[in-house]
Amino acid sequence: MNNKYTLGMIGLGTMGRNLLLNMADNGFKVTGYDKDPKMLKKLEEDGKSHSLIGFDSLEDFIQSLELPRRIVLLVPAGAIVDSVIKELVPLLEKDDMIIDSGNSHFTDTSRRATELADQGIHFFGMGISGGEEGARFGPSMMPGGDKKAYEAVKPILEAVSAKVNGDPCVTYIGPGASGHFVKMVHNGIEYSMMQLLAETYDLLKNGLGYNNDQIYALFEKWNNGRLKSFLLEVTKDIFKVKDEKTGGFLLDYVKDEAKSKGTGKWTSQVSMDLQLPIPTINESVSARDLSKFKALRVSLSKSLPHEGIKIEDSSAFEILLEQALYFAMITSYAQGLHLLEQASVEFKYELNLKEISQIWRGGCIIRAELLEDIYQAYTKQPALPHLYADESIQQQLKDILPGTRAVVITAIQNGIAVPCFASALTYYDSLRTASSPLNLTQAQRDFFGAHTFERIDAEGIFHADWNSKNLD
Amino acid sequence: MNNKYTLGMIGLGTMGRNLLLNMADNGFKVTGYDKDPKMLKKLEEDGKSHSLIGFDSLEDFIQSLELPRRIVLLVPAGAIVDSVIKELVPLLEKDDMIIDSGNSHFTDTSRRATELADQGIHFFGMGISGGEEGARFGPSMMPGGDKKAYEAVKPILEAVSAKVNGDPCVTYIGPGASGHFVKMVHNGIEYSMMQLLAETYDLLKNGLGYNNDQIYALFEKWNNGRLKSFLLEVTKDIFKVKDEKTGGFLLDYVKDEAKSKGTGKWTSQVSMDLQLPIPTINESVSARDLSKFKALRVSLSKSLPHEGIKIEDSSAFEILLEQALYFAMITSYAQGLHLLEQASVEFKYELNLKEISQIWRGGCIIRAELLEDIYQAYTKQPALPHLYADESIQQQLKDILPGTRAVVITAIQNGIAVPCFASALTYYDSLRTASSPLNLTQAQRDFFGAHTFERIDAEGIFHADWNSKNLD
Repeated sequence: MNNKYTLGMIGLGTMGRNLLLNMADNGFKVTGYDKDPKMLKKLEEDGKSHSLIGFDSLEDFIQSLELPRRIVLLVPAGAIVDSVIKELVPLLEKDDMIIDSGNSHFTDTSRRATELADQGIHFFGMGISGGEEGARFGPSMMPGGDKKAYEAVKPILEAVSAKVNGDPCVTYIGPGASGHFVKMVHNGIEYSMMQLLAETYDLLKNGLGYNNDQIYALFEKWNNGRLKSFLLEVTKDIFKVKDEKTGGFLLDYVKDEAKSKGTGKWTSQVSMDLQLPIPTINESVSARDLSKFKALRVSLSKSLPHEGIKIEDSSAFEILLEQALYFAMITSYAQGLHLLEQASVEFKYELNLKEISQIWRGGCIIRAELLEDIYQAYTKQPALPHLYADESIQQQLKDILPGTRAVVITAIQNGIAVPCFASALTYYDSLRTASSPLNLTQAQRDFFGAHTFERIDAEGIFHADWNSKNLD
Repeated sequence: MNNKYTLGMIGLGTMGRNLLLNMADNGFKVTGYDKDPKMLKKLEEDGKSHSLIGFDSLEDFIQSLELPRRIVLLVPAGAIVDSVIKELVPLLEKDDMIIDSGNSHFTDTSRRATELADQGIHFFGMGISGGEEGARFGPSMMPGGDKKAYEAVKPILEAVSAKVNGDPCVTYIGPGASGHFVKMVHNGIEYSMMQLLAETYDLLKNGLGYNNDQIYALFEKWNNGRLKSFLLEVTKDIFKVKDEKTGGFLLDYVKDEAKSKGTGKWTSQVSMDLQLPIPTINESVSARDLSKFKALRVSLSKSLPHEGIKIEDSSAFEILLEQALYFAMITSYAQGLHLLEQASVEFKYELNLKEISQIWRGGCIIRAELLEDIYQAYTKQPALPHLYADESIQQQLKDILPGTRAVVITAIQNGIAVPCFASALTYYDSLRTASSPLNLTQAQRDFFGAHTFERIDAEGIFHADWNSKNLD
């Protein structure tokens, strides 16, 4: 009985159970542990064809695993991860491996990896994306930690992952907490793309007066083109779903206050620490937060009423809107990838953006046709300083820029809020500006705070008396 | 000799020395301590008329102060504050008071206050704004901590502070770290206003082709109207300053890469923790970070060249631009004040926005005519849920909204980056929208993450199978 399972899963909720079933499908001898007997029963039911069984005793579970042990945690991020580790550690041996696959904050992962390294245990942070469906039939996975230890789980992860053109959607990400960091940024990009789809919906519904059927039809058409993506695909389907209670469209009964679990916020916060701007992702975080002020919004909608909508040619606008959405999607990936590059330098993650865009092409929530172009861009130039610097992306940007400007202008004229679209465009305009107006910012800082400034024509640090003596 | 000074300053750099001179001007018996003999000498020179002298021995300095001691720290934020406190504490007695007046992070202040409270010492975090000039002749001050202890310094602070209509620009802010929190948000608003002025400069310089003299003249004109503010006043003067080296305008030789000291970033980061959106302040943080990518900007300016500028009627545009700037300034204050309100609930700061806008009217960097209106708004309605909810502000917003839209549209048409202007407008449009499109976000989250949703027509938490059975 002892030491017979290749891998053990702790936490048999939706994600853990489905990932375990996926492993069993792929011929691996795996088992699981959960305190909750209902979860164990569900695993046995769903895994009947593989005679999959789990343990309710942590000791027995641990003893049942091959050495060195491969243990995957799929428990809620936060204090629970620490408490599970605390229970686990006395039962483990040198070279055993714990793979935390929840959405832990990368600084927690970093701390845990250091603490466990002292005891000879390999602690991996691994981001998993793809939701329930992905876990069951092929997720994208982002494992980071000790590279040699990774070899011990590589065959399992490669087998269960999504595949694109035969390539598995998993790769060794880098040392330390890089796996969770990359997954966090993945989610930041996801926030931005989701908000862009919400703004697109707003423009179609309130700008063009489209009903849900018309929006479904347009999204379906778009999803057959360059915008093809998991998010557009599921979004399109939402416009078809009927409400059992009222018989209307379910979407129309969903409350317009968005919640969040923190990964988008973390992405924005850490980007500020790294001084690497991702304003479009930031705007998507703000947009969710803003939506929660429903009472204030309703009250202000009365005292500061909308000035009225006037968009004349809907079929022309549809074409422009597709371009704007593509532009803003490119920009969302560009900001996220730029952040990864900076983090790689800062945290010594040795990230390979070519491989990261490769594994994002399938299985994960942000998978999209566009990622193939991004993968090609980083294949051609692994040290590309920014996605905007790729020639083929540049050609696309130039083509869709006029349409993007037109959409943002129309939205602003019509009082339809497009924080992410507008931010994507101002980001673009800022980034292709050789001389920014922030020389004024430095002059102001030196004026009232004596914070000094640099010159364009000489090396060094300067301070001027802006107040008096140099005035005309 | 012992126990004769009313207050002692630790750290006699620019801010500490000038604040001490200000206190001496106001008739208080004060002294200072600095490890650096040069700083002591400078204090004695500048304070000759008051026979102001300092100490180079911390023990003697402490012994020279009246009980309970009033000690102000003006040392760099961070680890230095902790090390000074560590040296100080063994020399202090119960009920002595330490007032940290640097830009410490409010969480540090909170920790220090708790640690020192155990020893009976009152630790205050006090934000000071106004730069060197302010410290010397009247700053705005934001002290937070134990209210009873505040009484012991109140007369000194009120005497040295700036005055507006006879009212001192200092008030007891609230318990805990509220003083530093409010100062941090002050700085967040400052970041936003500075970036708005940079974008205005860009529009005038590159949009209208104005030279520095023309910009000076326009800013001077504006500064005689409702835009009158410290920041516009100093900004205007910058356009007059000549460069000794080249004979040209100094501004034209200042490098366009903006630095920052962190308070703007902290404001954005904590706003995300509090889920209180301040997108325009966030964009100003991003704009500074973005400016640092000079090499990338120069390179992209060649491969993604500007499409050309066309703004025909400059005098008409000037009028609209003044409106847009006023709109975005109102919005910057609105976001900062909204954040204060949320923080007050979250951290139990008991903030009084009427008093905070009152003390910001003079002495500080964000002082402006507009703050009088804001003060009036909170005087009329102390529990105003948002600055946009004030009737008189609403009237102004309605008047300047068309001009604001026109400016953002023109900027976007002409490829001039206006991240803060655009963000202020999309924030406004989001906030006066009764039904936001983020019902779609919740539907998406429930679709692929089973995160549940709420309904508009029933209480409770719902989950739907969006994938299949409810499809048409």
